[in-house]
Amino acid sequence: MSTTEIKQYMQSVGQQARSASRLVAKTETIAKNQALIAMADAIKRDEQKLLSANTMDVENAKAKGLDTAMIDRLTLSQKGIATMAEGLLQIASLADPIGEITNLNFRPSGIQVGRMRVPLGVIGIIYEARPNVTADAAALCLKAGNAAILRGGSEAIHSNQAIAACVREGLVTAGLPESTVQVIETTDRAAVGELITMKDYVDVIVPRGGKGLIERISNEARVPVIKHLDGICHVYIDDQADFDKAIRISDNAKTQRYGTCNTMETLLINVNIAPKILAALGEIYQKKNVEMRGDEAARAIFANMKPAIEEDWSTEYLAPVLSIRIVNDLDQAIDHINHYGSQHTDAIITENYSRARRFLREVDSSSVMVNTTTRFADGFEYGLGAEIGISTDKIHARGPVGLEGLTSQKYIVLGDGQIRQ
Amino acid sequence: MSTTEIKQYMQSVGQQARSASRLVAKTETIAKNQALIAMADAIKRDEQKLLSANTMDVENAKAKGLDTAMIDRLTLSQKGIATMAEGLLQIASLADPIGEITNLNFRPSGIQVGRMRVPLGVIGIIYEARPNVTADAAALCLKAGNAAILRGGSEAIHSNQAIAACVREGLVTAGLPESTVQVIETTDRAAVGELITMKDYVDVIVPRGGKGLIERISNEARVPVIKHLDGICHVYIDDQADFDKAIRISDNAKTQRYGTCNTMETLLINVNIAPKILAALGEIYQKKNVEMRGDEAARAIFANMKPAIEEDWSTEYLAPVLSIRIVNDLDQAIDHINHYGSQHTDAIITENYSRARRFLREVDSSSVMVNTTTRFADGFEYGLGAEIGISTDKIHARGPVGLEGLTSQKYIVLGDGQIRQ
Repeated sequence: MSTTEIKQYMQSVGQQARSASRLVAKTETIAKNQALIAMADAIKRDEQKLLSANTMDVENAKAKGLDTAMIDRLTLSQKGIATMAEGLLQIASLADPIGEITNLNFRPSGIQVGRMRVPLGVIGIIYEARPNVTADAAALCLKAGNAAILRGGSEAIHSNQAIAACVREGLVTAGLPESTVQVIETTDRAAVGELITMKDYVDVIVPRGGKGLIERISNEARVPVIKHLDGICHVYIDDQADFDKAIRISDNAKTQRYGTCNTMETLLINVNIAPKILAALGEIYQKKNVEMRGDEAARAIFANMKPAIEEDWSTEYLAPVLSIRIVNDLDQAIDHINHYGSQHTDAIITENYSRARRFLREVDSSSVMVNTTTRFADGFEYGLGAEIGISTDKIHARGPVGLEGLTSQKYIVLGDGQIRQ
Repeated sequence: MSTTEIKQYMQSVGQQARSASRLVAKTETIAKNQALIAMADAIKRDEQKLLSANTMDVENAKAKGLDTAMIDRLTLSQKGIATMAEGLLQIASLADPIGEITNLNFRPSGIQVGRMRVPLGVIGIIYEARPNVTADAAALCLKAGNAAILRGGSEAIHSNQAIAACVREGLVTAGLPESTVQVIETTDRAAVGELITMKDYVDVIVPRGGKGLIERISNEARVPVIKHLDGICHVYIDDQADFDKAIRISDNAKTQRYGTCNTMETLLINVNIAPKILAALGEIYQKKNVEMRGDEAARAIFANMKPAIEEDWSTEYLAPVLSIRIVNDLDQAIDHINHYGSQHTDAIITENYSRARRFLREVDSSSVMVNTTTRFADGFEYGLGAEIGISTDKIHARGPVGLEGLTSQKYIVLGDGQIRQ
């Protein structure tokens, strides 16, 4: 397609989404759930179709020489397909956030003022290789009463179109317009440029993928973006930490999974407890082949450590690498986190009440924890049911973003003829 | 100042604001209130200074030939100064939103997950002639734990600097850094360009003033903006409306004040009740010199009406002018509002339960009302205490924005050594 054709195509996608969004906003819960269940059924029934479409994508990706990690993310297994269908059913079983009325109170004038939860409207989701995002994102947007425009990675185009067919079937079964969820058909990058600037048709953009993608979208978007760039997560071990908790949590935060955004990347240890902690923890990391990069004080305690350079404190390794710094007190730990962190997830290990309280208040991150692992920062673990992404921004939504993050609240005012004097 | 100097100056303002924001975020309620009370005292004490500074501004404005409405907004009276001081004391008396913990629940893993209300950080306020915004905005930002950068209109520069001196005095009295509230000293427009693009130092921009200003800022900003452009507010009189309520509310919504954003600009009347309503209401508007512009059906009922043209349906008159349209049913009314409205404030007058319920749900505006006047859409009337502005956006805050709109919520997680399996 030419640039003009892409523009026209995207404008038409946007118009249809806006018009579908008005319908889905007033759709009853039961119809939305029916659509989700029908999508799950179609996905289970079409297992073979999805697998062959995915095989095409994977073969193309291999032919293009894409790396193993990318091909891993791209590949759909039978189990992956079952999980995708299960995810749709889980979202069907969540409470409908739309229409909830809160804080309805009488005012001195006699009017009642409250807030009603309403959909955002049209959500644009831009993602990379993982095809399961097509189903997850469609389901979350629909359940929250929104229309969705999905733009997956070009390498997953066949898989995404096959999933999109199941999604459309589910919508039609429930009497909803097909355009409630649209998967963009062109792999041209110009389509993304349109999507993120169509202020009249798109209310919010959620980019999911590598930092490069998100940075680009965030810089060019004229529509609000819900996003996180980095997950530079810290654990601070206070000198009044319980030794066993400190070891167990610091081990888990780093080694339970290396490639996730809520994995610890920097460990801060109070100078008074550092010798005891590092002796034990250094052994554990060493056994698990975690490369440690320490400041001078850390290396003086545990020899088998590379020197950390300035850059290490602001690096998200997403790998078995950990930077370690010895700090004098809570103030230094909080300063380090607020300076080098990415406002994602940070934890303190301490039995001291006042320090826990200060850490909770003063660390300016989307999730702040006491005596537990950063790995818990996740929509399912927080009880949101599922997440569309994690936000490290302060506006609108912070932390894991579930159904509620895809909604807004309007004011409702009930009167009985009151007028303003 | 040269462009480079302005850039440097604004960067330094931004850096100081960011650093002050970290301090004020953890400042105790009592210190914030002490600062607000000291500001009010200084303003009352400096009444004469403020009046002379304001006289300078007003004389310059007159010499420049600015219009009467502008000079009205610019002028500070003794009463205005007293009201400004009173406003500061009222904000001191509001509950502190910061630190509030909600929804702290145990999860199956044993962790407790909840949300804590936190400041946004640094708020930039851009406004036009009204000098009292300097005190109001400073107070709201401070109470919500934020640092503020204020940019008032060039015509109010002397008044704003005089008020800023009182604000700074209050901050210092309470032991807070002066840079918690900074009033930009240059009247150069390039300073605004810097302010709205300093993503590292500014978390949100609130523009207050005419549509031109807000449109420009909204288009050029790289920082999130809380705003409304238009207030095209509707009242729909259903055929099951109570006659007296319909007349009283439609009169009040249009004529109680003409120049406010929550004034009704378009009246929609159900065809079945239109003859009775227009006979009575037309007389009232005529007596009050409200120019009526009606569609054909309306003019067939009430002759003394100009014809409305397409443009009328999307015009915010801010004047004694009203467009009137006759509609066949609720669907047509809702469609009209969602199509031509500005998502500000819209009301239905009806005694019909189901129609009221549908109107509340389906009208996509920041305030939706039943049987009361659009003029109630206001922070004080809603019980927010005071408002920094009104938002017709869906992201972050909708409707009147009070202290809560200047905050965010982070997740807090409390554990006892739990790790992720």
